[in-house]
Amino acid sequence: MRLLHLGDLHFGKVVNSFSMLEDQRYVLEQVKSYIKTYQPDALLLAGDIYDRSVPPARAVALYSEFLKEVLVELKTPVLAVAGNHDGADLINFGHELFEAAHYYVAGRYTKEIKKVVLRDEFGPVNFYLLPFADYAVVRELHEDETVKSLDDAMRVTLAANPIDATERNVLLTHAFVVGQSEEILISDSEKKLVVGGKESVSSAYFEAFDYVALGHLHRTQKVGSDKIRYSGSLLKYSFSEEQYHKSVTMIDLDEAGKLSCELLPLTPLRDMKTIKGTLEELLALPRCEDYLRIVLLDKGELIEPMAKLRKNFPYVMMLELEQNNQAFKGSQLTKQARQQKTAEQLFSDFYEHHKGEALSEAAKTSIQTIIKEVRKESCE
Amino acid sequence: MRLLHLGDLHFGKVVNSFSMLEDQRYVLEQVKSYIKTYQPDALLLAGDIYDRSVPPARAVALYSEFLKEVLVELKTPVLAVAGNHDGADLINFGHELFEAAHYYVAGRYTKEIKKVVLRDEFGPVNFYLLPFADYAVVRELHEDETVKSLDDAMRVTLAANPIDATERNVLLTHAFVVGQSEEILISDSEKKLVVGGKESVSSAYFEAFDYVALGHLHRTQKVGSDKIRYSGSLLKYSFSEEQYHKSVTMIDLDEAGKLSCELLPLTPLRDMKTIKGTLEELLALPRCEDYLRIVLLDKGELIEPMAKLRKNFPYVMMLELEQNNQAFKGSQLTKQARQQKTAEQLFSDFYEHHKGEALSEAAKTSIQTIIKEVRKESCE
Repeated sequence: MRLLHLGDLHFGKVVNSFSMLEDQRYVLEQVKSYIKTYQPDALLLAGDIYDRSVPPARAVALYSEFLKEVLVELKTPVLAVAGNHDGADLINFGHELFEAAHYYVAGRYTKEIKKVVLRDEFGPVNFYLLPFADYAVVRELHEDETVKSLDDAMRVTLAANPIDATERNVLLTHAFVVGQSEEILISDSEKKLVVGGKESVSSAYFEAFDYVALGHLHRTQKVGSDKIRYSGSLLKYSFSEEQYHKSVTMIDLDEAGKLSCELLPLTPLRDMKTIKGTLEELLALPRCEDYLRIVLLDKGELIEPMAKLRKNFPYVMMLELEQNNQAFKGSQLTKQARQQKTAEQLFSDFYEHHKGEALSEAAKTSIQTIIKEVRKESCE
Repeated sequence: MRLLHLGDLHFGKVVNSFSMLEDQRYVLEQVKSYIKTYQPDALLLAGDIYDRSVPPARAVALYSEFLKEVLVELKTPVLAVAGNHDGADLINFGHELFEAAHYYVAGRYTKEIKKVVLRDEFGPVNFYLLPFADYAVVRELHEDETVKSLDDAMRVTLAANPIDATERNVLLTHAFVVGQSEEILISDSEKKLVVGGKESVSSAYFEAFDYVALGHLHRTQKVGSDKIRYSGSLLKYSFSEEQYHKSVTMIDLDEAGKLSCELLPLTPLRDMKTIKGTLEELLALPRCEDYLRIVLLDKGELIEPMAKLRKNFPYVMMLELEQNNQAFKGSQLTKQARQQKTAEQLFSDFYEHHKGEALSEAAKTSIQTIIKEVRKESCE
């Protein structure tokens, strides 16, 4: 059985104020072309289909169009799960009805892992569709107080849904999976989720599966074993990914469930890369329509460098000064410089910038309390 | 052929801060029960499925569940169009795929009216699914500069999609349709759309159809002819509707396309009604869990009347004083009183209430400019 595994589509994502819809449409053409060429038995979408639980209408239209093309025109079944970025109910919409069209989707975990059976000449392959679910949801559904992390949730979920190891079994899920001694390659786009330690899931739970198609990490990689894989995101969504190559993962499962794997490369409409130089040097370069992070090496003051650069580089996403100087204080404070400061410091700077006086000690204490509360809420 | 016609479901609507989801779920049980009893050949949903283009997740889940029950459990095809409240792309999601499950939906008008053919013992019945579309959209699609109103849009749309009058034809659409000399019964919930005159559509365009299943107006009514009908909203969504009875419309089309019609009543979980009396009189009444507009007849000052009333009437939606007095100034200003003031006056009052001083003339001028701009934007 041949499978095409994609993850982290993030339809509707906006990166540094640029909508990625056109870029997403562009690489989807390549995905469809691979489907035409390699004729997989199914397309697997391992979560984070949308970038937000309430995606923009155009992202919904893009996914709808893609599904129609794959299912109706290319006659290829699609199996999908929701990721942590997706709205469970939106992904779940009409899921019972879509099965007639061979679109099998699990948006919301409901104690039973959705099982879909596809067949090839050697017999059945069982697909288990396990969407992202917060561990508190799993704890409540299974009435199991021992569930205190996503790792616990995976343990309990899989234990409650035993598989028949004499058949071939594939798990499709969305999680931050770590091997025994594996180096995990994460990017800025998913860093936020990783902090805290409660987020990771041991690969040890996946022993019984012949293939585990993962979503969540944006870099293409295997976890411990060849059969546990991230296909990675369709596009670079952060400059921390600029050195990586994007691909989709093609898997062939033989009669015994033995696996061979091929990475099929994706070429973006616009690459994402960093260029460095003085303003003068950069303006002498040929026009470039990639998404750029520009690091200026100039020492002195610069007059409207962004306006000048945009003429040559219309898709500048970030502009930084290697040696931070006066010219870029205030509203031009670079992202890099911002990231080195705490939220408290940033607020103090902002206040001082606008009011011309320092924040009082009492105000500082208030701000700290507010920031703590906001952080707490956004982690819940 | 037997049809059950519903309109204006408005899933996810919030009326005076109360979510209607539970109420909607309650009447949907009655709809399903009618489907079980009367076994229609199809369920028609005439737009405004959701209350907003981006509905809350629970509304999406409610509609998904309802569709599954009607299509899978009750084995009844569903035909639906988007209304002016719906997001075209959201309603359109997966529409080609859903057809395999006998859910036929048109969310976005694309120059061709979607045609669905169902059959009974007398032959085919053609259903034309025409979603709400702004006239500017129709003008652009048809490249027709004469389209300057929704009436023009309907004329051009229907002219471009001719029907075979020798067969039976049903139109499912969402519009404010007016007959020649008909009294139109509108409620507060849809008043906003009607203002301006560009919104109404003549019923004259519908002559060729055997039945026109309309959505948009919330009161059950026919327009000019028995065969052009609003089923009305599932629930009362405004106190202007309190005297009306809600129902779904059952239509039987005979071999010749001749029509008989029956209104099947819906009973709400909580009715919507107005009660009047002094605070003392009302507190002596038996507990009532309907949605209430309470008009107090007291003359003197009242201390926390809402808190007292809530104990007896937990679902008070509006509280008014027949003779407006001091006790209800400020945050307790009633809706009725608010509606009698201009936006400029309301802002002046608000400013004075918070700052303890009157708005300066310069500030008044600024506010007027801002209000004008906001109005202009919200009309565009």
